[in-house]
Amino acid sequence: MSIQLGPIQYGKAETRLVRIVRDTARHEITDLNVSSALRGPFEAAYLDGDQSNVLPTDTQKNSAYVWAKKLNPDPIEAYGLALAHHFVDDVPPVEAARIEIERYGWTRVEIDGRPHDHTFVRTGQEVRTAAITYEPAVTHVVQGFKDLVVLKSTGSHFKDFLVDEYTTLQPTDDRIMATSLTAKWRITDPAADLDWNGMYAGVKAAMLERFAELESYALQQTLWHMGRAALEAYPAIAEIRLVAPNKHHFLVDFSRFDEPNENEVFHADDRPYGLIQASAVREGASPAGDAWYSYTGLV
Amino acid sequence: MSIQLGPIQYGKAETRLVRIVRDTARHEITDLNVSSALRGPFEAAYLDGDQSNVLPTDTQKNSAYVWAKKLNPDPIEAYGLALAHHFVDDVPPVEAARIEIERYGWTRVEIDGRPHDHTFVRTGQEVRTAAITYEPAVTHVVQGFKDLVVLKSTGSHFKDFLVDEYTTLQPTDDRIMATSLTAKWRITDPAADLDWNGMYAGVKAAMLERFAELESYALQQTLWHMGRAALEAYPAIAEIRLVAPNKHHFLVDFSRFDEPNENEVFHADDRPYGLIQASAVREGASPAGDAWYSYTGLV
Amino acid sequence: MSIQLGPIQYGKAETRLVRIVRDTARHEITDLNVSSALRGPFEAAYLDGDQSNVLPTDTQKNSAYVWAKKLNPDPIEAYGLALAHHFVDDVPPVEAARIEIERYGWTRVEIDGRPHDHTFVRTGQEVRTAAITYEPAVTHVVQGFKDLVVLKSTGSHFKDFLVDEYTTLQPTDDRIMATSLTAKWRITDPAADLDWNGMYAGVKAAMLERFAELESYALQQTLWHMGRAALEAYPAIAEIRLVAPNKHHFLVDFSRFDEPNENEVFHADDRPYGLIQASAVREGASPAGDAWYSYTGLV
Amino acid sequence: MSIQLGPIQYGKAETRLVRIVRDTARHEITDLNVSSALRGPFEAAYLDGDQSNVLPTDTQKNSAYVWAKKLNPDPIEAYGLALAHHFVDDVPPVEAARIEIERYGWTRVEIDGRPHDHTFVRTGQEVRTAAITYEPAVTHVVQGFKDLVVLKSTGSHFKDFLVDEYTTLQPTDDRIMATSLTAKWRITDPAADLDWNGMYAGVKAAMLERFAELESYALQQTLWHMGRAALEAYPAIAEIRLVAPNKHHFLVDFSRFDEPNENEVFHADDRPYGLIQASAVREGASPAGDAWYSYTGLV
Repeated sequence: MSIQLGPIQYGKAETRLVRIVRDTARHEITDLNVSSALRGPFEAAYLDGDQSNVLPTDTQKNSAYVWAKKLNPDPIEAYGLALAHHFVDDVPPVEAARIEIERYGWTRVEIDGRPHDHTFVRTGQEVRTAAITYEPAVTHVVQGFKDLVVLKSTGSHFKDFLVDEYTTLQPTDDRIMATSLTAKWRITDPAADLDWNGMYAGVKAAMLERFAELESYALQQTLWHMGRAALEAYPAIAEIRLVAPNKHHFLVDFSRFDEPNENEVFHADDRPYGLIQASAVREGASPAGDAWYSYTGLV
Repeated sequence: MSIQLGPIQYGKAETRLVRIVRDTARHEITDLNVSSALRGPFEAAYLDGDQSNVLPTDTQKNSAYVWAKKLNPDPIEAYGLALAHHFVDDVPPVEAARIEIERYGWTRVEIDGRPHDHTFVRTGQEVRTAAITYEPAVTHVVQGFKDLVVLKSTGSHFKDFLVDEYTTLQPTDDRIMATSLTAKWRITDPAADLDWNGMYAGVKAAMLERFAELESYALQQTLWHMGRAALEAYPAIAEIRLVAPNKHHFLVDFSRFDEPNENEVFHADDRPYGLIQASAVREGASPAGDAWYSYTGLV
Repeated sequence: MSIQLGPIQYGKAETRLVRIVRDTARHEITDLNVSSALRGPFEAAYLDGDQSNVLPTDTQKNSAYVWAKKLNPDPIEAYGLALAHHFVDDVPPVEAARIEIERYGWTRVEIDGRPHDHTFVRTGQEVRTAAITYEPAVTHVVQGFKDLVVLKSTGSHFKDFLVDEYTTLQPTDDRIMATSLTAKWRITDPAADLDWNGMYAGVKAAMLERFAELESYALQQTLWHMGRAALEAYPAIAEIRLVAPNKHHFLVDFSRFDEPNENEVFHADDRPYGLIQASAVREGASPAGDAWYSYTGLV
Repeated sequence: MSIQLGPIQYGKAETRLVRIVRDTARHEITDLNVSSALRGPFEAAYLDGDQSNVLPTDTQKNSAYVWAKKLNPDPIEAYGLALAHHFVDDVPPVEAARIEIERYGWTRVEIDGRPHDHTFVRTGQEVRTAAITYEPAVTHVVQGFKDLVVLKSTGSHFKDFLVDEYTTLQPTDDRIMATSLTAKWRITDPAADLDWNGMYAGVKAAMLERFAELESYALQQTLWHMGRAALEAYPAIAEIRLVAPNKHHFLVDFSRFDEPNENEVFHADDRPYGLIQASAVREGASPAGDAWYSYTGLV
């Protein structure tokens, strides 16, 4: 049987780009990690090393820089869409583009209670992400975040589970629930005036509210309800996917010591960890196409 | 419109398991990172927190340990298949299982030229990987490796590429080509007597031979020919996928110094990097099903 | 010549300990990484494997857990002092102890503007650190932080430097200055009622104010003035040490593109980086002893 | 009391430098991470931002590149000495220099049993390190390695230790001993013809032989005897320092399963870990001066 070239894709990953808006003394900062991948008739590069259709990844990097100047890359979704359009619309052999972006947060340093004009401290909470797929008959934007570390110190149970001969875990009605959440939600063919920053803040708030308020009987349950809350809040979202490691906090055994330990002292374990994947889909949502076909290991 | 539960999966990730075979004074070591995920009728856990069908991830961990005792987990593929069979065949609600394994290499310490019986040093080269999907109507094994860092100091060109107004890269007929290779190849419904360790060594050797010998005009080209070599060597392989960052080595500009630099001193850059994805498929190969539906971010 | 045992030390590193105070419905969380090292007559363990004087590192870990219950480990300095006293005062052969702590920050999730009782999100900014050395004739506490990433988008010059034949750098009167700051300050034989949390907040604020307000002609200068500000604010501080990588932000060269780049688009480089070490010492300060003799690579 | 500038130092960290020797078709590769730090009358840079005595870190980077061309940087110790001499001897205000180097190993790819001329695979075992301090009245070279991961599956005991009320650990006469070893040994004012590569191989072999052959009753004991073996083998070594995390391998409890576990299945834990520091000193050795005054967090 013959051997054929399968799916291919190439691009530039992890261009670390900082954009300063300095039109006034009060500067703005946008700090990004940008990756771009192109699809099209690039077979000859693979089969024969013929690069005549290949826009160098170095050029893709330059383009990411230039487009960060042409427009302020905030919101990142609009920037990613513009960059994807450039590659597909302006560079003839390119048929589709994938842009993946991470955004790192910064806040102004406060001096005597006043935010400083041009000094910032990096916030360490979640990393905001965006993935744009422009095909161009259809456009998908996957907005999201990763590394949002959350914990509730009560309000979480784990019991009445399936037991087999290898089950040694004890049920509990009060445990710490903690995770480092990754969540991504898809908007297909988004409206031109979509408020990306507002949607991001709204989805994050809705999910945190659910995490805090739901009396939890499974991390699976918590994730589903967080995802559903996002879709209920924003009709433009077609689906959401969540991945959450169960960051185990084991109650330290004090039975041999002169102290009680009533859910007060825990060992935060590294590995292994439960890993839960969940998703919520709006009935009748448009197809996902390549929206979830990730380019880099960034996410 | 109503909101529905989409694809779900849960399990235990990154159980760090070391197995010693000590039947004789000459010990053997197998050092693994094992992840397992289960699929089945777990909807109630997500919707209502009802765990009655849920085998705890802690039990999955225990099972990984016990099966590492029942059989020597070398080759890892046979171990992963046995563990997947256990979950699907022995635990009623489970309908399909995914096992992902990393194996870290160790070699015997040599004392006066003789390999020691029970002292080992960890080799740092590639990490061997395996992913087993047991559905159970079909079984997929994806064998592979990651983090194989290779470099050739000549025999690599980059020229005659597409140029647009943002292209500043200069063509070259002699550059360093370096990458940290991830490669994975699929065998569906493998024969019971398949020599997994032999296939692994053979595929790696075939790919390294191609990397070394092919005069390269594109990393894309090198990857395709490496992948094709694997399929040519082993008819049981249905397809192979490769991901390779182009680890750029930039010639340092000595033009203002009193020394020439004729492809001798390079800066090994971190980011950004070109990222190339390639694949080779055997014509008429069986469908991939969920073979590539990864559970963890291990790969 | 004979070969002798030199300095020795042993202990338990990186006990990941989470303490919940749950006396009321409004929980408090303290999230720590605790390391302890002991010094004393442990020579026989090294020379002959005689452990009779050796308190196992596992016991040190248990002690760290128990002391986190005996007192709320906030402030971490008081907790570290108590744990050091326990090892030296209660375990006969131990002559001196070193406790090193990292504290990870958490803030309450806000639901409708109200901080939640038992749900927290991890803040990603700096990691607070403490190192206690109890000898016991003298006690040193080194308070500090690491990974405080700060940036100013103007107000930084670099010019009029020494030039030799290998100098290619161009001077500038307007660059981005960014660093990931580590700072540690020593208090020897601290007063029993020292307000550790207040001092921490005060030192951090004083340093950030200097970073923001000083027109900078060298990262060296900025560091010195930040350190001096800390000593001016708190007479109890004997000395301060600062380490700061110069996180280079290179202006992207747009000269061949149809866009200007007037300090607006930068490449945030990974490596190499300038690395500046600075310190400020109060005249007549007590000697440092082993205060800076670090145990782990945590810092 | 007045506040004064304390110890200062500055330089360029982590220049990632690859040197190819290509005088014949059989290329050689040296892959380095080079850091340099300078000491001298740099106070004005700290106090006032006056850079007139400051050789930019960018120039230090350029110098590292140029010296990698002037001589083949193998052995790394000779290269580091030459670079340190350059800074102190050729750049007037510089009074002392510190060079820290990491070297990553590469081996030739074998094709049909023959080592390839210009294709290499990175070996993942230990990272070789060197630290040169040139003052210049005295010269120290600290040769060493880090990340050498070794394990013995038997021949290690842990018992008869000190017990207090917080001790729960059980004694054992057969456990896995594993560590990721860092070792560094000092040669002061080395002979011009010292065979650095030979010494490196010899010390590593002597230490591995001791690790394997010594019946161990404490990791402390193993480290001391490994260090002593190095000093016995090479009279030029004045002292050696070792740091070793006790990478705990816990026997998995099978008591509730239908399988025995006779030291066969272990959990390789991440944290916490015992951390042991040891050193061996030759009687009458020359003083260490600033030999151990590390610049970067590389080690």
